[in-house]
Amino acid sequence: MNVSIAGLGLIGGSLALALRSRHRVTGFDSDAAARAAAGSAGVTIVDSLDGLLPADAVLIATPMSAVVPTLAALCPRADSALLMDVASLKRPVAAFAESARATARIVGGHPMAGATASGFDAASGDLFRGRPFLLVPTARSDGDAMALAGTLARDTGAVVSVCSAEVHDRAMAFLLAAPLAAASAVALAGAEAYPLLALAGPGFRDTTRLADTPLDLATELLTSGTDVHRAIDAVIENLGALRASIDGGRHEQVRDTLRAGKRVRDGLR
Amino acid sequence: MNVSIAGLGLIGGSLALALRSRHRVTGFDSDAAARAAAGSAGVTIVDSLDGLLPADAVLIATPMSAVVPTLAALCPRADSALLMDVASLKRPVAAFAESARATARIVGGHPMAGATASGFDAASGDLFRGRPFLLVPTARSDGDAMALAGTLARDTGAVVSVCSAEVHDRAMAFLLAAPLAAASAVALAGAEAYPLLALAGPGFRDTTRLADTPLDLATELLTSGTDVHRAIDAVIENLGALRASIDGGRHEQVRDTLRAGKRVRDGLR
Repeated sequence: MNVSIAGLGLIGGSLALALRSRHRVTGFDSDAAARAAAGSAGVTIVDSLDGLLPADAVLIATPMSAVVPTLAALCPRADSALLMDVASLKRPVAAFAESARATARIVGGHPMAGATASGFDAASGDLFRGRPFLLVPTARSDGDAMALAGTLARDTGAVVSVCSAEVHDRAMAFLLAAPLAAASAVALAGAEAYPLLALAGPGFRDTTRLADTPLDLATELLTSGTDVHRAIDAVIENLGALRASIDGGRHEQVRDTLRAGKRVRDGLR
Repeated sequence: MNVSIAGLGLIGGSLALALRSRHRVTGFDSDAAARAAAGSAGVTIVDSLDGLLPADAVLIATPMSAVVPTLAALCPRADSALLMDVASLKRPVAAFAESARATARIVGGHPMAGATASGFDAASGDLFRGRPFLLVPTARSDGDAMALAGTLARDTGAVVSVCSAEVHDRAMAFLLAAPLAAASAVALAGAEAYPLLALAGPGFRDTTRLADTPLDLATELLTSGTDVHRAIDAVIENLGALRASIDGGRHEQVRDTLRAGKRVRDGLR
């Protein structure tokens, strides 16, 4: 198939590398350096967004804020091509699809993989191998569109699953945004451990690892979803309850709260 | 030297294994199974706390709540033996030393190493290698006592440093207790990501890893220090400020906060 990719950073670049053994992959990035890096790695490059069409599918791997504008630019000329974004929020795409032309084919996608590095140079054809790839149907997702999206997602080596935009975005607020906010808040508080901060062990380092997320991505993750507020509030409430139990000397209650947190984590396995 | 160890769990057991090539190590644990496990590993075992004396040094590696009672039980009979605990709070030991007999030799110690596993079976003679080992002088720490404590700490393979009880306990609240509380709070909130919780990636897993801390130790860490309240409050305040910036659409402020957290973390390297 002819698969086009808009945005050749870590995710778009990794999609290009993962899919090129089975598909004819063409890429575009608004940044000339990213185009050059992908071109050197053997990806066929075009020098405008328009050049990505015609195609069987266009994957939109731009920064989150550019996803809907890119969809809007491509949609009128896309004919029956599948348009699938791969950002970590799905409600904006679902809302765009509601008002897109009746014959458009739009599916939301979210390959749940990443790295603290960014850009094409950090891209890898194995980034998605064994990781979840969520597909979110929209008002413009017919059976063919979902089937094609499933094929492409599977061809990246990922494990494909399907859910609604609402379930997806709420879950991501709790699994991505809240941990990022907490990591940053704990790191910032850690300054008060001076002069012993440098002695921080693996516990502090693991808890704050997400505070190393590239600033553009981190800012976007925290400011883009309507569920982020709720997820951060839940963490604040849990911390407040724990502090109240500690203050009240209710050690059994502290233990019960810790046990409940441990149980959620046990559910990950 | 004759080195006795009270408490043969992860830390006490690891001290026994680390020190026995250079010293005659004798151990005691109130739990018969722990005594048997350490005995099978070749540690000389006595069947009462009293049996640990006479000695050149007694290391107290009991759970935190038993540290001061164990010091109190040993002190009257310890003669010039160094008494050094290895718990993660130092103010209670400093306070005990204030009122101990004038000839007592008491130093607070804190080898900053651990594991999510517990008990003698998880002990390793390499646990402290290259890790920080903080020494906290008390009102009963003369030069000989500090020198002996330094020798023993170095003989575990650790890197020795010295600080006051106040600096130590405040730092630990920010480096141990606050991350633990945040990890637990994020894990607990994560239940709301159902049915996608199982898809949680390395970010969520790392941030919540400390929620797997054994319950006894975790409860003790959160309920024992007077600085824990302040450290959890600092995290809550940072999260509240971040949420307020997000709510107000002040993306530059979100970015500035994230940048400040990142900078603290950069200071770890």
